Amino acid sequence: MKFRNFKMVDYVVYGRGSFNQLDEILAPRRKSGAPIIFLLDHFFEKHSLYSRIPQQKGDAIILVDVNYEPKTSYIDTLADQIKKEFGTVSGVVGIGGGSAMDIAKAVSLMMNNPGKASDYQGWDLVKFPGVYKAGIPTLSGTGAEVSRTTVLTGPTKKLGMNSDFTPFDQIILDPELTANAPVNQRFYTGMDCYIHCIESLTGTFLNEFSKSYGKKALELCRKVFIEKNDWDSESDDQLMMASYAGGMSIAYSQVGVAHAVSYGLSYLLGTKHGIGNCIVFDKLEEFYPEAVKEFKWMAAKNKIDIPQHITKGLGEEQFDTMINVSLGLKPLWENALGKDWEKIMPKEKLRALYEKL
Amino acid sequence: MKFRNFKMVDYVVYGRGSFNQLDEILAPRRKSGAPIIFLLDHFFEKHSLYSRIPQQKGDAIILVDVNYEPKTSYIDTLADQIKKEFGTVSGVVGIGGGSAMDIAKAVSLMMNNPGKASDYQGWDLVKFPGVYKAGIPTLSGTGAEVSRTTVLTGPTKKLGMNSDFTPFDQIILDPELTANAPVNQRFYTGMDCYIHCIESLTGTFLNEFSKSYGKKALELCRKVFIEKNDWDSESDDQLMMASYAGGMSIAYSQVGVAHAVSYGLSYLLGTKHGIGNCIVFDKLEEFYPEAVKEFKWMAAKNKIDIPQHITKGLGEEQFDTMINVSLGLKPLWENALGKDWEKIMPKEKLRALYEKL
Repeated sequence: MKFRNFKMVDYVVYGRGSFNQLDEILAPRRKSGAPIIFLLDHFFEKHSLYSRIPQQKGDAIILVDVNYEPKTSYIDTLADQIKKEFGTVSGVVGIGGGSAMDIAKAVSLMMNNPGKASDYQGWDLVKFPGVYKAGIPTLSGTGAEVSRTTVLTGPTKKLGMNSDFTPFDQIILDPELTANAPVNQRFYTGMDCYIHCIESLTGTFLNEFSKSYGKKALELCRKVFIEKNDWDSESDDQLMMASYAGGMSIAYSQVGVAHAVSYGLSYLLGTKHGIGNCIVFDKLEEFYPEAVKEFKWMAAKNKIDIPQHITKGLGEEQFDTMINVSLGLKPLWENALGKDWEKIMPKEKLRALYEKL
Repeated sequence: MKFRNFKMVDYVVYGRGSFNQLDEILAPRRKSGAPIIFLLDHFFEKHSLYSRIPQQKGDAIILVDVNYEPKTSYIDTLADQIKKEFGTVSGVVGIGGGSAMDIAKAVSLMMNNPGKASDYQGWDLVKFPGVYKAGIPTLSGTGAEVSRTTVLTGPTKKLGMNSDFTPFDQIILDPELTANAPVNQRFYTGMDCYIHCIESLTGTFLNEFSKSYGKKALELCRKVFIEKNDWDSESDDQLMMASYAGGMSIAYSQVGVAHAVSYGLSYLLGTKHGIGNCIVFDKLEEFYPEAVKEFKWMAAKNKIDIPQHITKGLGEEQFDTMINVSLGLKPLWENALGKDWEKIMPKEKLRALYEKL
């Protein structure tokens, strides 16, 4: 098909305090004797959110480790553990940042698909629908709540399980849940949305659907990170909508240089996606001159340090790994630089860029 | 639930020429021996669009009469005709303006629900999912492509079949299809979107989800009807997204005075929704002063006449009918005027307003 037939999330609730509706929302999805498994970002282990999870008899909360970007092997371990311990489940609910969202989506799929998660890294390889899955973000910016992918690091590649079975059946967008996010983390994740909108709006793939969503997301990012001097509850409301709109904008657009380069970083060093994008974007004046200036200004205004020299001391082989992962992401480069991207970004130039990070 | 759990359309395609993907999109939905029924706006009877419909053996095109707002009795007639002639069907595809969309949604539901369409006018009364239904708008502005209702005139009320089963399974947003819409019709329908955004953005029910969508829709309406001097293909792209965003904005908002009053008009006189809203909005300076000024300016700039004196000569009983239909729409009045709306808009005042139309 020339134009993607975009699978939407089935149900969306948006509202301050809408997390309180979770029990009611899950009730019609419960099958007798089959529990709901809550996959909770381990950041919330001792947080009041833990006790607000509406567990019914038989349900379980599994704390998921999101110190690193999710690995396919971790998904396999979680899915095997759940199958062994609980047999059939009524569904999984992911609560946390982008990694928790991606883990929930991938685990749901691996409950019903044979083999390993790495077998399904790519486009439209997933064979069967997963179990019911709901996503509840506690950080805004990734767009993972509405995307049709789940980004995973596998044995040979960093690539999602991109399929019509991947989007959530339900998302609950409650801006109260993002209120106490660590300031740095909130900035890095918010910038994931900002950077991705810059990349898609300046790219060569775009139509009015994605442009409308992308511009709205960018406007909301600017409201919270530039126009306002203090963070307030409206900032949480707006950044949550920015994330949603940014995620929707990807339907008919593609990310660009920052994502292509930062995927190499996370593959090799495990750098988390939000901060990785910031580290790379900070050095992309050549490609996005105005936006990089604005980005630096936002970082300064919000008193955020962007890590420097993280590739210092890496060896030849390690640079080659990052370069190969990055150059493998052809659609991203083509979107950013056009059909002749290989001439504009030869290996040596990308190497020099990685050395600057 | 405090916050509505909004059922989204399952699949969305947006793109110039995406209508050409219809056959491919329908293929996996076809059940052996069960045809697809295309419900086509009668406006297209002799139009090239007719021959572009990808009919397979056994399929049928039914021309639907959209001279008046859809009646529940018309839905019953269509559903009975289809059941009698075709038995089981694989699905229905509505192609046309807002009425064709609403007819397709309602017929889909009545294929699988017993009784009459009027039994289901209200909130969450529909018992069973309809047959597969796709919507393809050829006019932009109603938002019917994404709404969870289907507005119908019944024996005693004008009210939709508002349910989670009502949204389309698939929509195809192809701005090329709106390119040759009659200029007046395009304006009236576009204003449906504009008016509904003004009503929801100035209303007392609203959150950031609906505000983001509403503002985006309004911005796009202004681009096409104010900023540009000529209609071009980008205008079609933008008004189609305005309609979509305007429809989404209704998730957590409500329309207001113009809709409440114009429902009375259409109930009594059969006035079509788009033009009816324009006739009413033109006289609402008291409630939306800035926007009514802008509306009059848009009408003048686009050389559109707004009909006047359409209630001239109506009798006492007829005014009472319109007033009763209108005042029955409590949530609309409350959104517009707050909890004390009955004091702000007593019967006599509404009567005077109807007399001005």
